[in-house]
Amino acid sequence: MKLYASHRAPNPRRVLWVMAEKGIADVEVVQIDIMAGEHRTPDYRARVGVPHVPALELDDGTVISESVAICRYLEALHPSPNLFGHDAREQAVVEMWTRRCEFYLANPIMLNVRHSHPALAALEAVQVPQLADYNRAAAERFMKTLDRHLADREFIAADRFTMADVVSVVGLDFARLVRYRPPEELTNLARWYEAARARPAAQAGV
Amino acid sequence: MKLYASHRAPNPRRVLWVMAEKGIADVEVVQIDIMAGEHRTPDYRARVGVPHVPALELDDGTVISESVAICRYLEALHPSPNLFGHDAREQAVVEMWTRRCEFYLANPIMLNVRHSHPALAALEAVQVPQLADYNRAAAERFMKTLDRHLADREFIAADRFTMADVVSVVGLDFARLVRYRPPEELTNLARWYEAARARPAAQAGV
Repeated sequence: MKLYASHRAPNPRRVLWVMAEKGIADVEVVQIDIMAGEHRTPDYRARVGVPHVPALELDDGTVISESVAICRYLEALHPSPNLFGHDAREQAVVEMWTRRCEFYLANPIMLNVRHSHPALAALEAVQVPQLADYNRAAAERFMKTLDRHLADREFIAADRFTMADVVSVVGLDFARLVRYRPPEELTNLARWYEAARARPAAQAGV
Repeated sequence: MKLYASHRAPNPRRVLWVMAEKGIADVEVVQIDIMAGEHRTPDYRARVGVPHVPALELDDGTVISESVAICRYLEALHPSPNLFGHDAREQAVVEMWTRRCEFYLANPIMLNVRHSHPALAALEAVQVPQLADYNRAAAERFMKTLDRHLADREFIAADRFTMADVVSVVGLDFARLVRYRPPEELTNLARWYEAARARPAAQAGV
């Protein structure tokens, strides 16, 4: 299998982090230079269907884009350690938190950075300052929810590290590009964030 | 089990559609009036954790929010007809398309409507016209991708109706609130859209 990834991009990092947690070493990582537009070449688009990284090319030629779909597929091949839940109920809880952390934290941060960082103007048809501001406020609202949630929990979605934690740390780390740090009064969030960033697998794709 | 849903809201409709496809009749549907703010009451927030519908309350008291997490849980309880894929590879393809259709079609449409429809101002802290325009353009870009994809396919993600189709039809239908219709030249999209809307289950939650 081949993984199309890109240095410093947050969504490929989710997959590389999951591969590191699971000790997956039989996937060839192919770097795509998105700042040079390599994800927009006719060859890449024909292969993946959309100008996105990451994408996983299976040995039968099937190409899967979308980081969480790729990670769930890797979990099916390499079930341990479990990152998506052991049974239907736990899988639902983990997916709920993974989606909340994507939609209300990681995606708003991504939009904030892409619409405010001068060097990333090339990735957007047009940078919209209002969009940057709106999304920064949205991300901070969810950080408060997450801080309350983490008051008596070590991890976001279960009694162990899961996909929801991966998505959240990668999201928060991406905000460092615009020198953003979560509000200091969110001490539960800070404790969880520091512990998650200290995992060895957090270094994959950085 | 209880499903907290809301008339005319797109995300609850996804779940009601899936229940109708699967013939699930043992879930009590509780209407939450979001225009009256019932999703923001202390009781609802304490129960669900976030001010969102839909939410599924299990018999053990666990509450799952996030429409796709709820639908995947219902698929585990009621596997037929299959809407999420039969094996790991097909599940990855269905999840990829479901996510593409959420992020690049349904969510942009939802943001466009919420930031441009006068009656929905109550749902947003502030309506941002630039956000409405940006998201309408984004949704139309993906409609073109989807139109090409559907040139030789009856359904979006597999040789049968799946979750990706549910998400896409519900997204496009929500745009009707602002009297939007997809560009007429997208004839493959139009053919697929008409066929999907003609399914009996499409009437659930409308």
